[in-house]
Amino acid sequence: MRQVRLDAARIEKAGHRHFMMKEIAEQPTVIGNVIEAHVAPDHARVDMGLPGVDFAQVNRVSIVACGTAYYAALVAKYWFERIAGLPAEVDIASEFRYRDPILPPGTLAIFVSQSGETADTLAALRYAKGKAAKVVSLVNSPESSIARESDIAVPIHAGVEVSVASTKAFTCMLTTFLTMTLRAAEDRGTMSGEEIAATIADLRSLPGLVSHALSADAAIHAVAAQLAKARDVLFLGRGQMFPLALEGALKLKEISYIHAEGYPSGELKHGPIALVDRDTPVVVLAPHDRLFDKTVSNMQEVMARGGKVLLIADNRAIAEVGNDVWTSIAMPDAPEILQPILYAVPAQLLAYHTAIAKGTDVDQPRNLAKSVTVE
Amino acid sequence: MRQVRLDAARIEKAGHRHFMMKEIAEQPTVIGNVIEAHVAPDHARVDMGLPGVDFAQVNRVSIVACGTAYYAALVAKYWFERIAGLPAEVDIASEFRYRDPILPPGTLAIFVSQSGETADTLAALRYAKGKAAKVVSLVNSPESSIARESDIAVPIHAGVEVSVASTKAFTCMLTTFLTMTLRAAEDRGTMSGEEIAATIADLRSLPGLVSHALSADAAIHAVAAQLAKARDVLFLGRGQMFPLALEGALKLKEISYIHAEGYPSGELKHGPIALVDRDTPVVVLAPHDRLFDKTVSNMQEVMARGGKVLLIADNRAIAEVGNDVWTSIAMPDAPEILQPILYAVPAQLLAYHTAIAKGTDVDQPRNLAKSVTVE
Repeated sequence: MRQVRLDAARIEKAGHRHFMMKEIAEQPTVIGNVIEAHVAPDHARVDMGLPGVDFAQVNRVSIVACGTAYYAALVAKYWFERIAGLPAEVDIASEFRYRDPILPPGTLAIFVSQSGETADTLAALRYAKGKAAKVVSLVNSPESSIARESDIAVPIHAGVEVSVASTKAFTCMLTTFLTMTLRAAEDRGTMSGEEIAATIADLRSLPGLVSHALSADAAIHAVAAQLAKARDVLFLGRGQMFPLALEGALKLKEISYIHAEGYPSGELKHGPIALVDRDTPVVVLAPHDRLFDKTVSNMQEVMARGGKVLLIADNRAIAEVGNDVWTSIAMPDAPEILQPILYAVPAQLLAYHTAIAKGTDVDQPRNLAKSVTVE
Repeated sequence: MRQVRLDAARIEKAGHRHFMMKEIAEQPTVIGNVIEAHVAPDHARVDMGLPGVDFAQVNRVSIVACGTAYYAALVAKYWFERIAGLPAEVDIASEFRYRDPILPPGTLAIFVSQSGETADTLAALRYAKGKAAKVVSLVNSPESSIARESDIAVPIHAGVEVSVASTKAFTCMLTTFLTMTLRAAEDRGTMSGEEIAATIADLRSLPGLVSHALSADAAIHAVAAQLAKARDVLFLGRGQMFPLALEGALKLKEISYIHAEGYPSGELKHGPIALVDRDTPVVVLAPHDRLFDKTVSNMQEVMARGGKVLLIADNRAIAEVGNDVWTSIAMPDAPEILQPILYAVPAQLLAYHTAIAKGTDVDQPRNLAKSVTVE
């Protein structure tokens, strides 16, 4: 009997030791599914079914979520504001309900939950109904309570996620938000048809880029043995990469029990740098973008205090500063807009391999439930 | 010579061992100074000199700051929204500049900096000038760059702050924001004249309440010896107390080098509870407010996993659950609106005594500068 059950589990994990690794590896496929579902057949525009939503009539987006979904929402805020010129506000669900939030006319409220049953998010949705112009949800379960109680439920197409630590649902939420942002840019006229088509072409390269990022697995496995010795780890990022620093830290916390914390790179010197010593690795998520020079000076502050920098970056960034840092992990070059999705992959792998090195239960970390259905 | 210099230092510290303790102890006086400066002689209304500002014409407040000043701004967001019905947005200065923030017409931009020379905040102010309807700063140095470049500089009246870890500047920022919120409530008609006068009467009790809070020093000193053994500490708070959890964690990080992290209480179960074990104290800032029952269930989650809860609360809360927790620190009963200011005191004392117990350099923690004049 036991033998049979183990074989069944192995089949479910598609040859992987853990559901988490299976789900990390599925990301090129499921991200591709999101793109296929939300892009018109001619690849010229987004067609994701948001009946009755005209973003030109929306004054403000208010996004509410918990945990990993909250970090996806923080990335979406950057995109809505930068790409679609649409002010966005993001709240933690348990806080949103209790601050008597003001939802001015023309507010589109968006609720994000993998399970669609997150109690805090569902309660926040019920608060917003009747106040917001329209209630939209991003969910992985179209039959869930949050999906049923929304005006529009947008599926994130991640497929069943078993591991408590969310991976593919996060990148599918991000990809869904990115297509929604392009739709908003079209409605609001902040991008031309050519720009949208070019961005969709970029987007269609994402599954290949994510596959490429997965090939960093061996390098990350090697560095994880070192990281597993740390008691504390800081994650840094700027702009759209700051929420990735939060997500990288959360993943490491959840499954390795190392106290990791994410900070915006520029905030390090306003306090948390006091923590930095030889035993505190600092993971820096820094593709070579227009903020890279600022991030380099933040890394230098860390190194001047004996801190070890683990740089996750593209080849150009690593060529410039890779010799100075403790170690670096190379990501493929990618259009700036795709970087938050791409850099989720090394953050996930880092947590996974560190947890394996520590011997913790990757798929069922202590104290946590997959779907938090209590407040 | 040395003897003379030591005496001079002791005089400067007014008999305290450290500037930090001197500055913590000065808070009843300097908070009283803020109230006297910003309240009309008849105590019926706020009179704080905001020439040309009519909050009835303001659609949105955008507050920008770094570090401790950023946490003061997060509290102010709750007050502006709840008391004055005025939507508020808060940004970390180093992030604000780079996200191409949208400042819609009618936005009042507020920049907060003790020194008035914080490089990131100054650069953010320069970005906002000409875009925001009006640029206001809250500063401790009226001659500073940020004060000079603002349309209106509001002094926080904290007096010279020497310790790198900010204490009295934080509570003076909060008190200044609270008087500004009352002015906004008057302009916008969200409070009657009677309500404003009653709140000012409450506010005038604040120096006495803070003195009372300082008498928890001995109890906090006793528990700090235990806290000093921890490698990791979590701080929890809900609503207007969440930023206090962030500030309490930052203070402990800065001067004791313990990895402390603040979370909204309701978010604990969405990941960070994985960190909780017998060696991870959880500090809960929870006066008996309308959210107290929710917080009790969060504390029970911690205790069910072997975590030690240090509850900082008023007598009613401690009477209800004080027997269940590891230890508790009593605060005087206080009007809800004053609680974020009041609860800053035990958070400061906790960091101070823990650092003393660890033997770190309280006034000059490693890696940190008092005023961060580089980006």
